[in-house]
Formats: sequence, C-alpha cells, structure tokens
Amino acid sequence: MIYMNCDYNEGCQPAIMKRMVETNMDQHIGYSEDDITAEAKALIKKACGREDVDVHILVGGTQTNMTVISACLRTHEGVISSAMGHINRHEVGTIEAHGHKVLTLDTTDGKITAKQIADFCQDHINDESREHIVKPGMVYISNPTEMGTIYNRQELLDIRKACDEYGLYLYIDGARLGYGMAAEGADFDLPFLCDVCDVFYIGGTKQGALMGEAVIIMNEAIKKDFRYIIKQNGGLFAKGRLLGIQFAELFKNDLYMEGSRHAIAMAMKIKKGFLEAGYKPYVDCPTNQQYFIVPNAVEEALGKEFIFDHECRTDADHWAIRFCTSWATKEENVDKLLALLASLK
Amino acid sequence: MIYMNCDYNEGCQPAIMKRMVETNMDQHIGYSEDDITAEAKALIKKACGREDVDVHILVGGTQTNMTVISACLRTHEGVISSAMGHINRHEVGTIEAHGHKVLTLDTTDGKITAKQIADFCQDHINDESREHIVKPGMVYISNPTEMGTIYNRQELLDIRKACDEYGLYLYIDGARLGYGMAAEGADFDLPFLCDVCDVFYIGGTKQGALMGEAVIIMNEAIKKDFRYIIKQNGGLFAKGRLLGIQFAELFKNDLYMEGSRHAIAMAMKIKKGFLEAGYKPYVDCPTNQQYFIVPNAVEEALGKEFIFDHECRTDADHWAIRFCTSWATKEENVDKLLALLASLK
Amino acid sequence: MIYMNCDYNEGCQPAIMKRMVETNMDQHIGYSEDDITAEAKALIKKACGREDVDVHILVGGTQTNMTVISACLRTHEGVISSAMGHINRHEVGTIEAHGHKVLTLDTTDGKITAKQIADFCQDHINDESREHIVKPGMVYISNPTEMGTIYNRQELLDIRKACDEYGLYLYIDGARLGYGMAAEGADFDLPFLCDVCDVFYIGGTKQGALMGEAVIIMNEAIKKDFRYIIKQNGGLFAKGRLLGIQFAELFKNDLYMEGSRHAIAMAMKIKKGFLEAGYKPYVDCPTNQQYFIVPNAVEEALGKEFIFDHECRTDADHWAIRFCTSWATKEENVDKLLALLASLK
Amino acid sequence: MIYMNCDYNEGCQPAIMKRMVETNMDQHIGYSEDDITAEAKALIKKACGREDVDVHILVGGTQTNMTVISACLRTHEGVISSAMGHINRHEVGTIEAHGHKVLTLDTTDGKITAKQIADFCQDHINDESREHIVKPGMVYISNPTEMGTIYNRQELLDIRKACDEYGLYLYIDGARLGYGMAAEGADFDLPFLCDVCDVFYIGGTKQGALMGEAVIIMNEAIKKDFRYIIKQNGGLFAKGRLLGIQFAELFKNDLYMEGSRHAIAMAMKIKKGFLEAGYKPYVDCPTNQQYFIVPNAVEEALGKEFIFDHECRTDADHWAIRFCTSWATKEENVDKLLALLASLK
Repeated sequence: MIYMNCDYNEGCQPAIMKRMVETNMDQHIGYSEDDITAEAKALIKKACGREDVDVHILVGGTQTNMTVISACLRTHEGVISSAMGHINRHEVGTIEAHGHKVLTLDTTDGKITAKQIADFCQDHINDESREHIVKPGMVYISNPTEMGTIYNRQELLDIRKACDEYGLYLYIDGARLGYGMAAEGADFDLPFLCDVCDVFYIGGTKQGALMGEAVIIMNEAIKKDFRYIIKQNGGLFAKGRLLGIQFAELFKNDLYMEGSRHAIAMAMKIKKGFLEAGYKPYVDCPTNQQYFIVPNAVEEALGKEFIFDHECRTDADHWAIRFCTSWATKEENVDKLLALLASLK
Repeated sequence: MIYMNCDYNEGCQPAIMKRMVETNMDQHIGYSEDDITAEAKALIKKACGREDVDVHILVGGTQTNMTVISACLRTHEGVISSAMGHINRHEVGTIEAHGHKVLTLDTTDGKITAKQIADFCQDHINDESREHIVKPGMVYISNPTEMGTIYNRQELLDIRKACDEYGLYLYIDGARLGYGMAAEGADFDLPFLCDVCDVFYIGGTKQGALMGEAVIIMNEAIKKDFRYIIKQNGGLFAKGRLLGIQFAELFKNDLYMEGSRHAIAMAMKIKKGFLEAGYKPYVDCPTNQQYFIVPNAVEEALGKEFIFDHECRTDADHWAIRFCTSWATKEENVDKLLALLASLK
Repeated sequence: MIYMNCDYNEGCQPAIMKRMVETNMDQHIGYSEDDITAEAKALIKKACGREDVDVHILVGGTQTNMTVISACLRTHEGVISSAMGHINRHEVGTIEAHGHKVLTLDTTDGKITAKQIADFCQDHINDESREHIVKPGMVYISNPTEMGTIYNRQELLDIRKACDEYGLYLYIDGARLGYGMAAEGADFDLPFLCDVCDVFYIGGTKQGALMGEAVIIMNEAIKKDFRYIIKQNGGLFAKGRLLGIQFAELFKNDLYMEGSRHAIAMAMKIKKGFLEAGYKPYVDCPTNQQYFIVPNAVEEALGKEFIFDHECRTDADHWAIRFCTSWATKEENVDKLLALLASLK
Repeated sequence: MIYMNCDYNEGCQPAIMKRMVETNMDQHIGYSEDDITAEAKALIKKACGREDVDVHILVGGTQTNMTVISACLRTHEGVISSAMGHINRHEVGTIEAHGHKVLTLDTTDGKITAKQIADFCQDHINDESREHIVKPGMVYISNPTEMGTIYNRQELLDIRKACDEYGLYLYIDGARLGYGMAAEGADFDLPFLCDVCDVFYIGGTKQGALMGEAVIIMNEAIKKDFRYIIKQNGGLFAKGRLLGIQFAELFKNDLYMEGSRHAIAMAMKIKKGFLEAGYKPYVDCPTNQQYFIVPNAVEEALGKEFIFDHECRTDADHWAIRFCTSWATKEENVDKLLALLASLK
C-alpha cells in the first residue's frame, strides 16, 4: 500500500537525521537552552527578517495551539475560528479544557473573512445581554487552512484591521505554512506574517521534521513568561536540542522551502490528473492537500493500492477524498496513482 | 414604565416573605443542613412521588448548570445542547471554563430531536478521527426551552432512548418548569421527569422565589459527593434556610403550580391580543414567553410604556420582541398593554 | 440548644427585612442594574471616601474568591496564601478548579508577613528551575484572618511594599471586615484599605445580611470586564435588588459598624469569662471568633447546651473550641454560657 | 565542561538511532497506530508478564502526569503527593491547571508512607467541614523518588492497602524506573508494579530514549477512552513510530536494564569517592542521583570543570549538590571527577 493520507507518513529530511546521528553523544543542556536551538532560532529570525521576535520550538500542533491560546486569553474570553478550524474539530476540545470557548464562523472552503469577524464582534457589542456572553478575545486562522486553501496578503491585512478595531489578538496556525508559501499565487512570506499578526507558528511535523513547531511571537504581552506556559502544557522538551536540530537544518540552505516546493509540484500533478480524468475538486486549492469527488467505485478501486483520507460522502454514490503530498512524496507513486486512475475509465 | 421583559422583576411570593419574616431571628445550622431545608426536600420528594432521589437547592441557574455538568463529565467529554441553549448562549462559557465543549445542534424553535442526537453520536462513532474529537457525554435540554416551546412526553422518551443507546446522561434545565407543566397540552409532570432523565432542576428564581433552583438527582453516579461539587462552585449557601424557605413555601398548598397557572393565563391573554391585532408570533409557544414580530413603529410605541426584550431584527422594518409573564404579572398591566396595542392600529 | 458556632445562624438585620417586605412587589431590572443596587454602591463608595472604585455585589464568599482570583491571574500564576487561608482549606479547591495553585506560607495565628512573601518570591527568582515552577502572581490575605487575628496598618503597608517589589496583586478577603474594624486596637478603615490593596471585599453574609459580599476594585486591570467574570462564575444574581438592599441598609445609619461593635462587645465578654475561669486562648485575638483550650469534660458539658466549633484536639485530654459572636448574639445567651462555664469548676 | 547535572544530556542509545536511520523513509500510519509501536507494546507487555494491560507511549513526563491524573479524578478530587513530588514542585502547576489540588505530605527523603496517607484520609473523613475540603482521590508517588530514594516491595504493598481502604487510585511515576530496579537492594520489578498500582509509567527520556514515556494501565476505569485524553493533552504524537522505536529497542535484548545497570555502577563509584573523601550525602540513596554536602570552595572548584545541580544551600558555607549518571555516562568522566575531588584535599 502507498500512503498519501497525510503529510507525516515518513520520518524526516535526511539532513536532519544526519545531524542527529553526528551529535547523538554530544552533551547538551536541556529544555531548549542549548547551542543548536540557539542556532535554529537565529536562522528563523533571519528568515523572518527581524531580531525583535521571540522564537520557541514546541513538539506538536495541538500542544502549540493550547499553549498559545491559553497564554493570550483572560478567563471570560473566547477565540474566533472557522467551524472547520483544527482547534474546533480535531483537538478533543483542548481549548475548552483550558477554559475558553471556540466561537465558530461558518465556512465552506476553510476560510473566514474580515467582515464575518467584524460582524460577529459588532453583534456582541450590540447585544443587550453581552455581559452574559463569551467575549471575543482572539482570532485563530490556519494558513493554509484545513481545506488546503490560502489567505492572501490583502485578506490577512483586512483581518488584521478587524482585529485592531475590536481589540483581538491575531494568531496564525502554520502547520503547513511552507506548503502555503510555495503555492502558485501565494503573496505572503515570513516577514509579512510577522507584521500582520501577534503570534504564529511555522510547522515542522508536516514539513519534513520528525516533530516540532516554531512559535514566533511579536506581541510583547504574549512574550512575557511564555516558557512557564510551555512547561505547564507539557511542551518544554527535555532533549530540546532535537527540536533545535529539526529547525536548524530546515532553515539552512533553503531546505524548508525546497521540500515545500516539491510537495506542491506533486500536488499539482495529482490535481491535473484528476481534473483531466473528469473529476471535480471538492475544494479547489493550490496547496498540498487535494480534495476530489469520486464515485464509490473509484474510491474503492483506488483504496486497494493507496491509503487516502475520507472527508465525507457528498451523496450516496460519491465520496470526497483527500490526497496529501509532502516533501517526501515520490514522483513514481504519483505516477502510479494517475495510471491507476486512468485505468478506471 | 411597566416591566414585562423577564420573569424575575418582582421579589417573591408573599407566603415566602411571610415565613422569612417569622423565622428571621431563629437560629439554624448553615449550609442547607437545617430543618426548613429538610422540610422543603421532603415536600419536593413528595411532589416527585419518589423517596430515592437526592435533592439539593442551589442559588441560581448558571451555577446549577455548571455544577451539574461538571459533576457528570470526564475531561474529554462534551455536552450536547441546542445552539440556543442557555449554557451555549448566555452563561459566558462557564461550561467551557469548567473544561467541557458544548456540542451544538441547530434549532429554530429551541428544541432538538432524538434523531439529531442519535445522528450526531453515530457520526462521531463513524469518524476515522474520532479520538481527536470531543466525545458526547451528556444531553442538555431546557423544558420549556429558551424560546418558550415545550417537549412533550413522547419527545422526551425518544431522547431518553437515544441517550441510552449512546451512553449519554440526560439533564433537563427546568428554570421555567412550572410554566411548562401549566401550559395547555403539556403532558409531563415531576414523576415522569424523574423517570425520564438522570438529573433535572426545578427553577425557583423565575417561578416566585427570591432565588433558588432545586436539583433532583436520580442517577447514583451523579449523587456521589455532589455537595463537594456544589461547594467548589460557590453554591453551598451559608444561610441555606433561606433556600429552604423558598421551596418549602412553593411546594406547600400547590403554590408553585398556582403561580405557574396565573402566568400562563396572562401569557395566553397577551397572545390572543397580539394575534387578533394581526401580529405573527416569532415562535408559536404555549408558555410564559411570548414572541411577536412587530413593525418598528409598534416596537417604538410599546417601548414608551413597557419594558420588553428584543430577540432580534427579523428585517430592517421589523423586530421580534418578547413579553414575559410570571406568577406576579398584574392583569391590569396586561390590559394596558393590549389597550395600547389596539390604539396603534 | 444555643448556636454560637458561626456568624450566620440568624437571618438578617431587621432593617434589611423591613425594606425587603416594603419593596417586594416593586418591579426592578435584573442583574444588579437596578436603583437599589445603585444606592448601595453609592453608600459604599462614600464609606470608602472614593468615587474611582468599582463596586460589585456578589452572593457568597467562595464565589467571590474564585471570581476575583480568576479575574487577576494568567494561567501560569498562583496565589500566595497562608496555609490556613479560606481558599486553601475550605473551598474544595475552587482556586485549583479555576486553574491556579495556592502557594502556601506557614502560620500559627493565621497571619503571614511581608518578609515571608518577599522570601518566597526571591527564592522563586533565584531558582535555576524557576520556569518549571508556578509563578507568584497575587497575595491573598483575610482580615480578620480565619483565626480571628488582625493585620494592622503597618503590616498591611509592609505587605503592599513586598507586592510592589515582586509585581503581585494584593487581595483582601473581608468576610468579617466589620468585626476587624470594630476590634480594640484596629487602626485600619475602608479608605485605607482602598489605598493599600488592589481589590478587597466587604463581607455581608457574616455581618448581618442574608447574603452578599461587596467587591471593591481599585486596579484598572481588574475592573475591566469584571461583570463577564461574575456571570461566568454564577454570581450575576437575577434579582440583584436583593443584594442591593442588604448593603443599602447596612451602610445607612452606621448599621454595619453598629452590628460589628455589638459582636465585639459580646466576644470580649466571653473572652474575659474564659480567661477568668482559667482557660487559655488557643489563639489570642480581638475579634468575634474566640478560641479556647478546654478539657474534654468541659467540652462535653458545654456541648449539652451550646453548639460551637471544634478546631482540633490539642492533646488527648483537650480540645481547642471556637465561639463565634455576631451582630445577632443575645447577651442573655452569653450570660448563660458564662454561668454554665462557672458551674463546671 | 562535562555535564553531570541530569540524565538527559545525550541523545539516545545507538540501537535506537540505528533503527531510526534504517526506517526513516518507510511509510507509517500516524498517531501510534503503526507496526513498530505495536512491536514496542508487545515487548513491554511481555516484560510486565501480562497481556491484560493497556500500553500508551507519550512524549514527556509532565505531559504524562497531567494526562493520567486528569483521566482519573472527578472535579472535586485531589491527588496526594510528597511535597517534593515532581507534580508539586516542577510542572508549573499543571495539575492545578487541570483543576485538581495537589495534597502534599511532608518528607525529607522524597518518600511518603502508608501511615501518612491513611492519617490524611482519616482526618478528612473526621472533619466536620469535609464537604468544604478537597477530597483525596489518588496517590502519586515517584519510584525512584525525586531524591533518588526507592520504595521497596513492602512499602508499596502498604501504600496499596491504604489506597484500597480509602478508595484511592495509586499512580507511580517511573521517570527513572530502570535506575530504581537496577539499584542494589531493589526488590520490585515490572510484574509486581502491575499488581500493586492502577497505572504507572516506564520512563524513556531519562533512560536512553530521545523521548517517550510508556504508560501501563491496569485499572479498567482508567483504560476507557484514554486516547482521547492523550490527544486533549497534546500527547498524541503524529509520527508515533518514533516513540515506538524508542521502546521497541529499549525492550529488546535487555537494553533498558543494561543501560540502567551502567548508570548505577557509575553512581556507586561516585558515591564511594565522595564518601571516602569525607563528604556526607545530603540524602543517602542507591540510584543514579547522588547528593552530597560540600563546602563552598569545593562547589566552586568542581564547577570549573563539571556542570551539576544545586539542590540548596545547607548553610552559609555549604551546598547540597547533585550528580546524575545515566546509561551514557563515561567512566573516564567519573574518574576525572574523582581525581579532581581528590586534588581538592
């Protein structure tokens, strides 16, 4: 079976593994206060074009979201998210377990708009009973979104403006950030993200690292005591040097974007193949997640050789399925997929 | 100005005040271990027709909801509720502050169905990622609902069945329970509620008490250590005798239902008046909350003499407004309202 | 049996009950936005000698503590308290249920010192592992303490200084504040408390009200959105006018202090009686809680006619017992107690 | 500088790194449902001599403690721990952040006794105000303790008995379990631990893995839905195969105990050296943590070539310092340390 169900089926970029082997018996201080982590942070700051940001490397995405969000909100505040947002759908309610309501906005493509955010906040202010209702304190968006779509520069600036108007933090979940920046038509980069939001993270786990998500904090209020909050959430990794190695290698020699570009090339090849074979996208998107609507028979036939994700049934006769590429996707496997697809005509 | 915006504009039933005056300087032990509370509990058990239930009297509705729900759920479990549910809309996310997600089902009239509950749970079980998603642990419904509608006996039995099938507790918020039981066509009573759910509460605050909500627990697992959890939530009232007096008097001489019937009579008079005047109900309901759609000019004119609730604008020219009656509503005020309405033709 | 086990055995000051009766059928808006509450707040501000404080009236002490403390702390911060502090001993861990550790300091008389606070914070700063440890964010003291002792002006100023040095909020639990201010030798008053701390509360429940604790907030950061947090903690009382009546009457005509002085007079009479009878105080204190060490036989004999509190056994042959006076203590009962005591010689 | 301050200064056992390299580009399903994790679980069950336990591999110790403890307790329950317990001292209050009080017992050597536990619970039951106090729900002990001491078989059986008597779960934190089992005189093993407690974990991070702690659950109530709770706490590791590799290799060919025995041999050599040089142990213990009291001048001289831990000052002229050995400690470094020590005479 060939796995194309997610972007973490393999281990890590060989350069990362090489450095892990080379440094394995070196002695380092723990909890991310080592030299390799310092090197990684310096490289990330350089890529961001800023020295005045704080960088912390955590282990995984759910851990990162719960840490960042609980660092930002007072007890009566909630976080605005698309109903499809990872924090709303796939983290066993960890935001609620940390005491905060996820305030959901509807979406079909995974994106929410500045207008939706402003309307939601304005309705809150206008409500006679507003002191009986959770107060919006933060906006959470993923870029790319959980559906593979991306926010462009203007959309992000508009959301920032709404956040400023209503006193909200803006936090961007970048679990697949590289795949977004490498997408055709993407007009945002790390320096821009540093300008537009208060805090975001650069995903490692889905981008070629064994693990690790790098949180970038611009807002001074969030910077304060952040390591305490990492520890409280189980994220202060004992052998922090390992997280350091992941990002030191990814941000050396453009490896992070190189792997991202490869994933996009493979995704676009799959997209072209499915479209040419006459299948419609479930969501039309330019990143490494590709959703298609296929008849049950096609789903079944593909499932004999490939593992992929099932988003939902679109009707009794069709499935919306998802293929995920990554830095590690072999072109020969993509070719096999498209050949199998062609054979099903 | 005449207040008809809620069912807690006045103090309490005169019989309650009388007993408070009479017993004011008596000495009692604190924290609801006094004799008057024992009397109240005995009267409530009698009204329920059961001795094997636990009764606890708490101060207010939000406090009661957070206490009951946090007593029932493990950390990864959520509570299913209508999106209009009080716990979802009007308690500043206290359920989330206690660590649990509110899992919302859509509704237009405030009610949810057994089928919606079953479908939601079945979808959860079928989901490949279910261990990444909050697990349903409980169903919360209000009866009457926040919109004034009521669940009948069969609907409640169907919901119970769904709860049994999917391993869920059933909890009924009875903030306005008397107004529900007194409604025309209502076919449920306290003994039935004891049979159909695991825990419910009989509202006092909106039903003629100064304060107080009586929690009735049938399920042994919820009974265990419940007083600890009341205390942890700030609900173990020092001068508990006062809560005892509220319910001892309400459940003596049928006072609770007498007040409820009066409220319903007044509500039906208002309903008849508005319908005859040609206004449509926003929600058609048989209890003490009456919603009507009126033109802006009518809203404005009524607002010069009456205080009422604004649910929402239904369009640029109309408001959905709410009138609330109670045990204390004076018929002369209802007459004034209808006379004013007639004059606006 | 005569109750002297606590200061909430009776109902309320007759003036309060009178006004409740008079206004019972008046209509008021809910949730403490009514005129009577406004009157109460104005009287409290006047007593404090300041207009620039926020006043909120909550229902009970545990509720007040959990609301204030969770309004103040970020997730990684804890609250410093005496090990005997009410929040540490007698609130079923509600502070922890709200996510915060209680950082305890040892005490024998219920008081903690500025030096203890400073040392604790300095140790935290000096600790190599400090980011693995809860950060002190606030100091909680009760005045009078749970043992009936009081902090004087200089001790409070010293604690304030330590708080300023280490960036801590200072919060004073005044459940029995009047009994403290009325004690012989007490040199603090409401205006001073407003100057020395960030937030405190004036207790009603133990001071002649049916219920109610008035929170006084000086610090702007705590003022922000406080009503949301009251509601989230179940403390936004529907018939808020009742809370208003309690404090409007207590702060009219010096009633709050008049009741306090009576309680102190009764307590001093009891103290004198026990000391003259040859019994030692368990803690020597000037307020309405009086602790004595008595032989088992005396404990047993007193227990046949009086209800009092058992603090602990001091050895196999002795008990430390507590008598509590209040605004409502009848002098004839005190006389009976002392006569009984005399008869046991 | 030579690091001897902790047991996680190096990477991992070479066998682990070798397998990581070999399998790096293999495709695996995520979230610990892969074949390598299955292999690891089977090996652990075999070592435990039981098939009827559930095994879950989490990332780190704090994460494991917060996951296990929040899986076990209801909202009003707390966990009994030594005041020196890791959950009490070094996890930024994550247990409190999850809503539960840590109920501390005093200790000088890191251990608590069955009698202390029983007395604490009995005092709770006897307390007139017990419903106002956190209820003990669980006992947490570390074996070896945070001070390097160990509980023997009989002590653990006695604690189990106290837990049974008072209805408490028993949870053993085994962050350094191998170093305990390898200690001279240790009389417990994995099958015994399975019998004596409800849940424990076998530490990986400090025992030669890059990361990872294996939770072993015997109690059915804790087994239920445990993966949901792992996920909610950010512990469902995307590339779970890596956690699998750590434990598959450690539990193959006795590697876990081999590394443990090496650490103990090095620790005993250091102990012998310090004792022979005339220094007293701060705590006398048989495992890989060795505490000594040394004059300031010795602390300073050693600190020029070695990194070690500072427990506390024992007086103005002396430090209590800690040396930690591990599976990776080089004997030549131990020799250098002892030579340096000898030269300081």
